[in-house]
Amino acid sequence: MAQDPWLLTPGPLTTSMTVKQAMLHDWGSRDAGFIAVNDRMRQRLVAMIGGEGTFSTVPMQGSGTFAVEAMIGTFIGPKDKLLILINGAYGKRIEKICQVAKRACATLEWAEDMPVDPNLVKLALARDPAITHVAVVHCETTSGVLNPVAEVAQVVADAGKKLLIDAMSAFGAIELDSRKVPFDAVAASSNKCIEGVPGLGFVLCRVSALQQTQGNAHALTLDLFDQWQNIEKTKQYRFTPPIHCIVAFDQALNEHEAEGGVAGRGGRYRNNCKILVDGMRRLGFETLLPDHLQAPIIVTFHMPADPNFQFQVFYDKLKDRNFVIYPGKLTVADSFRIGCIGRLGETEMKAFLGVVADVLKEMNVKSGAPARKAAE
Amino acid sequence: MAQDPWLLTPGPLTTSMTVKQAMLHDWGSRDAGFIAVNDRMRQRLVAMIGGEGTFSTVPMQGSGTFAVEAMIGTFIGPKDKLLILINGAYGKRIEKICQVAKRACATLEWAEDMPVDPNLVKLALARDPAITHVAVVHCETTSGVLNPVAEVAQVVADAGKKLLIDAMSAFGAIELDSRKVPFDAVAASSNKCIEGVPGLGFVLCRVSALQQTQGNAHALTLDLFDQWQNIEKTKQYRFTPPIHCIVAFDQALNEHEAEGGVAGRGGRYRNNCKILVDGMRRLGFETLLPDHLQAPIIVTFHMPADPNFQFQVFYDKLKDRNFVIYPGKLTVADSFRIGCIGRLGETEMKAFLGVVADVLKEMNVKSGAPARKAAE
Ligand SMILES: Cc1ncc(COP(=O)(O)O)c(C=O)c1O
Ligand SMILES: Cc1ncc(COP(=O)(O)O)c(C=O)c1O
Repeated sequence: MAQDPWLLTPGPLTTSMTVKQAMLHDWGSRDAGFIAVNDRMRQRLVAMIGGEGTFSTVPMQGSGTFAVEAMIGTFIGPKDKLLILINGAYGKRIEKICQVAKRACATLEWAEDMPVDPNLVKLALARDPAITHVAVVHCETTSGVLNPVAEVAQVVADAGKKLLIDAMSAFGAIELDSRKVPFDAVAASSNKCIEGVPGLGFVLCRVSALQQTQGNAHALTLDLFDQWQNIEKTKQYRFTPPIHCIVAFDQALNEHEAEGGVAGRGGRYRNNCKILVDGMRRLGFETLLPDHLQAPIIVTFHMPADPNFQFQVFYDKLKDRNFVIYPGKLTVADSFRIGCIGRLGETEMKAFLGVVADVLKEMNVKSGAPARKAAE
Repeated sequence: MAQDPWLLTPGPLTTSMTVKQAMLHDWGSRDAGFIAVNDRMRQRLVAMIGGEGTFSTVPMQGSGTFAVEAMIGTFIGPKDKLLILINGAYGKRIEKICQVAKRACATLEWAEDMPVDPNLVKLALARDPAITHVAVVHCETTSGVLNPVAEVAQVVADAGKKLLIDAMSAFGAIELDSRKVPFDAVAASSNKCIEGVPGLGFVLCRVSALQQTQGNAHALTLDLFDQWQNIEKTKQYRFTPPIHCIVAFDQALNEHEAEGGVAGRGGRYRNNCKILVDGMRRLGFETLLPDHLQAPIIVTFHMPADPNFQFQVFYDKLKDRNFVIYPGKLTVADSFRIGCIGRLGETEMKAFLGVVADVLKEMNVKSGAPARKAAE
């Protein structure tokens, strides 16, 4: 079997063969074995945020956005108002969800290459007492910037408000401890840093907050309260679960644990990121973000100024050599992105850098330096 | 590798090993190969209803209910009113969706062992001119009854109204031809009669009707119009697709085609159903439905009257012998269900009957006859 391309993207990601092999069985959804897998999954996710006794995992069929929309629709009631902190496409998406779901909201916006600023959040909360909740994205995958979630959480708690976190691309690799960081819910998915296959989102919910949400949801399928009640009472999903995906996720959680949990997984990604950034810089490329703002998840590079550099050619030539990168999603600068997550390590990152060097030579590109740099 | 249990249930179902093996690869969602798979899937589903040129497949992440809810939320606008034909839990679920999504609706109800009656639909439409759409379930999986969708469709079209179909458990095995049966949309999923793994729903939409639905949806993720526009324009899903599930579904569609499409697949299921019903009747069991109302999808049996018969024991002993059956969902009678769908044929159905006979003997149950029969 030829090697699948290495996916240096924000997802779908490269997963281990053992994770995929877990999907070679069929299970009934009432099967005791599957029920045990599902229970274990829910407990292990709660343990990842130190939420034993206070949090409960509510799985949500679909992708990560289904989990985020379910979180917003379930936690933001008809009398609530959500302040959304936006510094990229995923914050903007939460605003879109509020518009469609008809949830009252306000926004605070920053440039895509800036983290959100807790001080401005504090001011905004003081100005508008109608706000009951705040939403923040942990790692804004649009740029790769790490938002200061702990500081934001403190400001929100101090103001007596509640925090909802989209930690999609960070969960499982960047620490989030519910005993230190106050929040009511965090959404993520099977196919980011835990390295399962796509098909399941989940929301870890503070039980005392979730208990207040009955009847809030704007859609039957996206009702976290109802989903939670049903799973707790019957051990069954309300609607057919993506059973192969869940069993693969259980295996991915085994492998996450074996690697040393969040610290171990995050360590590998930080190493991947460092190898990538150092190597790309040596080739002249420039990162969008300074190192202290960069999450070890995905790195945005400025487009090179060299007229011989055409992104599509670069992309295709990398693909021919079995590496898939990702287009940019920035509105502020012409860019592309390279992911550090998924079943990739030092070997693949170094091989990738060698391939980039070869491809640049083939394209007759002298340096990856962007126009901005060249113009200085 | 030990044989997985045979799933004689309405889903998740037994799938072929080749379908599961298709999941042993990782694909990028922008990969040309995956885009081709997705295009082919969408086209083959349209071809299954003879909808070339008039229908378009809109895939929906999640389970079948996500597709049904997306269909209701997208097609029923703020000024529309839906008449829901209910003869089981899945019709009732559509009513629940309307309540949560705040869609105007009316209902017509029948007993769970009766098909819906087109004449009563005609009367209801004449009585309430505010009704714009009608929803019907093709095979009501609650009982296994086949609803007369073609006749209902004619009555609805004659009244100048639009029809939405939940064909979840029938699609791909029971013919539905859009050139003969007028309807605007039909919802189904990857894991019923096409024998893929669960994780994807889809709605086949009449394009001329879908074009009128912009802005209707009650949830961002469940917006079929937006999903359709995005896939048509960019070939990309708006949110991460369950890529392994989709690639497996493509393989399932290959196998469906190789079996002779809807006619071939339906033929195998009809044969499974006949073997099952004949064999169970020989053991004294009685079906809920007379044969002419029975869809070849899932069969409801009355609970035996013999005091030695305990359903949980029966279920567990069958499970020990690698056959999984399904509890009843009826409100009208104590019952259990046995599915005829999934990767099962004559061999498995006959083996199952042998196992049932052994288990009855072991339980010291003389006959599967229900109380009703015994009392006659
Ligand atoms: C921060 C963030 N939120 C939400 C999403 C959406 O997840 P999905 O594509 O699984 O719907 C992503 C996906 O990359 C993400 O990075
Ligand atoms: C007729 C019908 N509609 C809807 C559904 C719901 O599908 P899912 O469980 O995939 O959400 C089913 C499932 O069996 C069904 O049979």
